[in-house]
Amino acid sequence: MTTPVETVQPESEDAYALASDAIDAVLDTVESGDRAALARLLQPYHAADIADLLEQISATERRDLLTLWDAGLDGDVLSELDEGAREEILEYLPTTVLREAVRDLETDELVEIVEDLNDPQTAAVLDALEDTDRVAVEQSLSFPEESAGRLMQRRLVKAPTHWQVGQAIDYLREEVDLPENFYNVVIVDPRMRPVGMVPLSALMASKRDVELVDIMEDDFRTIPVLQNREDVAYAFNQYHMVSAPVVDSDDRLVGVILIDDAMEVLDEEAEEDLMRLAGLGEERLTQRVFQTTRRRFPWLAVNLVTSILASVVIAQFTQTIEAIVALAVLLPIVASMGGNAGTQSLTVAVRAIATKDLTGANMWRVIRRESFVGMLNGLMFALLIGGVGVLWFGSPMLGVVLALAMVANMLVAGLAGVLIPIGLDRLNIDPALASGAFVTTVTDIVGFLAFLGLAAMLLL
Amino acid sequence: MTTPVETVQPESEDAYALASDAIDAVLDTVESGDRAALARLLQPYHAADIADLLEQISATERRDLLTLWDAGLDGDVLSELDEGAREEILEYLPTTVLREAVRDLETDELVEIVEDLNDPQTAAVLDALEDTDRVAVEQSLSFPEESAGRLMQRRLVKAPTHWQVGQAIDYLREEVDLPENFYNVVIVDPRMRPVGMVPLSALMASKRDVELVDIMEDDFRTIPVLQNREDVAYAFNQYHMVSAPVVDSDDRLVGVILIDDAMEVLDEEAEEDLMRLAGLGEERLTQRVFQTTRRRFPWLAVNLVTSILASVVIAQFTQTIEAIVALAVLLPIVASMGGNAGTQSLTVAVRAIATKDLTGANMWRVIRRESFVGMLNGLMFALLIGGVGVLWFGSPMLGVVLALAMVANMLVAGLAGVLIPIGLDRLNIDPALASGAFVTTVTDIVGFLAFLGLAAMLLL
Repeated sequence: MTTPVETVQPESEDAYALASDAIDAVLDTVESGDRAALARLLQPYHAADIADLLEQISATERRDLLTLWDAGLDGDVLSELDEGAREEILEYLPTTVLREAVRDLETDELVEIVEDLNDPQTAAVLDALEDTDRVAVEQSLSFPEESAGRLMQRRLVKAPTHWQVGQAIDYLREEVDLPENFYNVVIVDPRMRPVGMVPLSALMASKRDVELVDIMEDDFRTIPVLQNREDVAYAFNQYHMVSAPVVDSDDRLVGVILIDDAMEVLDEEAEEDLMRLAGLGEERLTQRVFQTTRRRFPWLAVNLVTSILASVVIAQFTQTIEAIVALAVLLPIVASMGGNAGTQSLTVAVRAIATKDLTGANMWRVIRRESFVGMLNGLMFALLIGGVGVLWFGSPMLGVVLALAMVANMLVAGLAGVLIPIGLDRLNIDPALASGAFVTTVTDIVGFLAFLGLAAMLLL
Repeated sequence: MTTPVETVQPESEDAYALASDAIDAVLDTVESGDRAALARLLQPYHAADIADLLEQISATERRDLLTLWDAGLDGDVLSELDEGAREEILEYLPTTVLREAVRDLETDELVEIVEDLNDPQTAAVLDALEDTDRVAVEQSLSFPEESAGRLMQRRLVKAPTHWQVGQAIDYLREEVDLPENFYNVVIVDPRMRPVGMVPLSALMASKRDVELVDIMEDDFRTIPVLQNREDVAYAFNQYHMVSAPVVDSDDRLVGVILIDDAMEVLDEEAEEDLMRLAGLGEERLTQRVFQTTRRRFPWLAVNLVTSILASVVIAQFTQTIEAIVALAVLLPIVASMGGNAGTQSLTVAVRAIATKDLTGANMWRVIRRESFVGMLNGLMFALLIGGVGVLWFGSPMLGVVLALAMVANMLVAGLAGVLIPIGLDRLNIDPALASGAFVTTVTDIVGFLAFLGLAAMLLL
């Protein structure tokens, strides 16, 4: 067997990114209509890279490519695609190709694909599966979305407590239906409850007559089948787990979750927090423009309402502004500094809640800390901006008003930045989801009230 | 052997979070000074949970706890701590305890800890290690920070190409210095270049006389020792790798990276992007207030300068505002909507660059898409806000001005939201780092110019 090791450019900024000219070459071949050349060109790519390629070309190019490459599209590519592109492709993919493609997938990958299908497509896919796989997929689909039950695979390696190493090795050598990847043997009691895990490395390093129970790790963690997948990913990362048995409410083994799936969830959940903080829902570059526009509309609408609220505050001070138009010039500075300081505190708090680093035990310390940080930075920027007010408009009193408003606003920004996400979390609302709009509303209103109110009192 | 399976509350929102009362119990015991009770109380916790507990109590409580629990602190807890808390603890931890703690760590964990130490502490730790470990740590430290060389562990299992399964199993049974975790045997040629990987599951499932080269996977990927750790994490997630051999510039095997370390990097890099988008550097809840204040200052200072720029734009229109004070009332709406639409586009672009989904191949499509989405939402909000202008201030022309400014600003927001991160990425600047300040500056300035300029033309 030859040894074509794939090499990668060291330190390259674009390591692993698809090269433009590689994509161009593929598109040229699609245009030429040379089926064999296309297959040759795509053959060395990993399924994940082909999925990326499909996502980065236009919908028309995607369809042309898949029409020419109909024998090539396998289940791995399908399962690597983002939902936007997959939904679109499944609309026109011939059922025969779909059936062929899904045949070799693990049950967890099948579940991910079937979730997106319409009824006739689902039936076609389920028909293509062997009985045991079909039942497994149907059972997984009976668990709630986002649960461990949807994430787990059913195929796993287990052994009874009375086995020795030799029996386990013989079983593994004879069994034909082993999972594609596994790193542990789950030891189960007669009622199918996991009692320990034997890493394959420990199995390999032991003599044939050693009892499995003597080399098993008994401080492993089981995952309840209804547990939220975000918590599953957290547990894998926190406890350096590589695979974990999934159990039902009676603690009986029903499946296994592997670390690569948990890693994918961790990545997706981090993306979700990032997107939600910016007022975005689930969004893919492959989504159509109208769909994207519609998805972004609601948060912008919320923002419109809250910014009108801030405007109403300003409207109370029109006489003051008419008297001193410099106030209108300086308003955006007050709003912007408060908004940014609030976003800093907010982001720290949202992340700390997600990583379970902000709990009841340190909540008050964090609240004190953020308001103190806000106040300190507020004091420093009060000096700076007060100076700007004096130099620009030649009015010491205007400088004082700006400085006081700055301290008040940044103190409130620190407080609101922590209190609002903590409050939402207590109400079981994702703190990333709505905090941004609330925090900037608070800082806008407090900033405008403080600045214009003080101006009305001290300058008129 | 008994079987104390750890069970977890299903579906609990706070699964895996430390309970407040558990932390209170630990603190009470620390106060009582009962060394044995404290050890008993902490014994069942995973090192990662003890690290979290230490991070969530105050600095004083941390010191008291560690003084009482001096025999308990092991290397695993030390390596799980965030840098803020670790630096603080290492300042007062007795050298004898430190030496004892680090003795059992893998080289990659040692490197992570030694990076934070001062010179005498480093010397003490290195002295405590066996010769091979010390050399390995020193070699790892010679690679740049953030490189694969710092991330890899040196201990690994390799086998020559001429071995059979039986020889590999016998070797594993006899070797005493095996890595704590491993999932593959790396097959190397006589010049120590990796030519394939044999998963332990394949090794287990094969008969003793099978050649290793016949069951090895030869489409594995090697990681160059200088590769950026962010790209390493990307490759693990993209290609579902579980472990990967690390090679030097001559393609010779120098170490191995395991998926749990890659998962941690993925998590940290996602956090970094989230933080940078909010104008935050590396920040820990355990950091001191003054340190945090100082770290947040620079981005707020940048924001002060850019918001003054926006104010200068407004200052050009003081006569217009004096004539129509409603303009001052409505200014924050224009700025806020543009800023938020820009942040939406920006976040999508920054994430897509990080996941290598935005490349030269689809750049123009994404730019077109974002400006189109911005324009469409701009049109819808133009109608809404134009209506508000008419209803609130009874001036149809003011409504028209608001509507036109809204379309212009949201179109520019979409464009700037993509172009700025792409531009920064081209200049090899992390797009998450500076985009926020640039994008809102552009939307503020464009928004104010369009709104006040049109008002000056059409309303005066």
